[in-house]
Amino acid sequence: MPHIGLNSDEPGIRGLLRFRPETGRPLGELAEVLLHGPSTLTRGERELIAACVSALNDCQYCSSSHSACAAAQLPGGMALVEQVRADTGNAPISAKLKALLGIAFAVQQSGLKVSADDVTAARAVGATDLEIHDTVLIAAAFCMFNRYVDGLATVAPQDPAVYAAGAQRLIMNGYLAPSADPER
Amino acid sequence: MPHIGLNSDEPGIRGLLRFRPETGRPLGELAEVLLHGPSTLTRGERELIAACVSALNDCQYCSSSHSACAAAQLPGGMALVEQVRADTGNAPISAKLKALLGIAFAVQQSGLKVSADDVTAARAVGATDLEIHDTVLIAAAFCMFNRYVDGLATVAPQDPAVYAAGAQRLIMNGYLAPSADPER
Repeated sequence: MPHIGLNSDEPGIRGLLRFRPETGRPLGELAEVLLHGPSTLTRGERELIAACVSALNDCQYCSSSHSACAAAQLPGGMALVEQVRADTGNAPISAKLKALLGIAFAVQQSGLKVSADDVTAARAVGATDLEIHDTVLIAAAFCMFNRYVDGLATVAPQDPAVYAAGAQRLIMNGYLAPSADPER
Repeated sequence: MPHIGLNSDEPGIRGLLRFRPETGRPLGELAEVLLHGPSTLTRGERELIAACVSALNDCQYCSSSHSACAAAQLPGGMALVEQVRADTGNAPISAKLKALLGIAFAVQQSGLKVSADDVTAARAVGATDLEIHDTVLIAAAFCMFNRYVDGLATVAPQDPAVYAAGAQRLIMNGYLAPSADPER
């Protein structure tokens, strides 16, 4: 049961975005730019970064939701997502994505853990400054979203089908103005 | 030196907001609602929560900046801010603010650390659901801002006068559209 009285029974962050639309709006816009907007990283790659950081933060709602979004947009599907979450180093993903995930994993611990060597290594396998920037901000943003969702003890559905259906809606509609759309 | 090439020599988050205005805009809007917009918590109280979380995350730029904002808007000034940062339990602040800071300190570790007892205790000394919500989101948001600022190794000025002057600008102008204002 959530720690505070919400004005809907929507699970996870959806109930929070609806409860406080003044903060829900910029939070939705941030997610839209980072995960769904134009980028040289694919949407699947960006969702994978969000899913992996959320898993490290033990946030069941966000890791399930963004794993489903990544699985639906990566050729390897959920098997690949699970492989990356379990053993990033040996997963069949590009060297660039591996290096960016390494930066994201450092950010999850602390911004101070990202070393110049981490950044040099990412650049050596083709990461651009904007890709490094966005990776740091995606990882940092999920350290916020995860704490927001769990710090207020929102409900996380158990059924994977709920997250798969949510992923389809997010892929189609993006992250903007969820509270304006009663169907989301 | 920052890990990536920025398009200005502005320190801390200011250089990042200017580098990527697409994310800078929602980040500024989020800070504006949480720290500067209408609330039953004073601006000084909200800045104090931001300052304390940033200090726990060892983020020099954000803890200096928001300590200066808190000091300028709390009757006790910087002496009070330093007392709260060093020993919250014995600082001369309200029981409600102490309870909310306790929730913020839990969020800084993990959302899962916030207990029903923490929330019940805050409510018992007068905290509303919206104040509890905003406290959790302020703490969570600074777990993002701190990681963003340090994960890209932005520059943190040493001189306290820089932060005091910045605080005056933030108090007067708020957090919106910083990259549109070359003077900020």
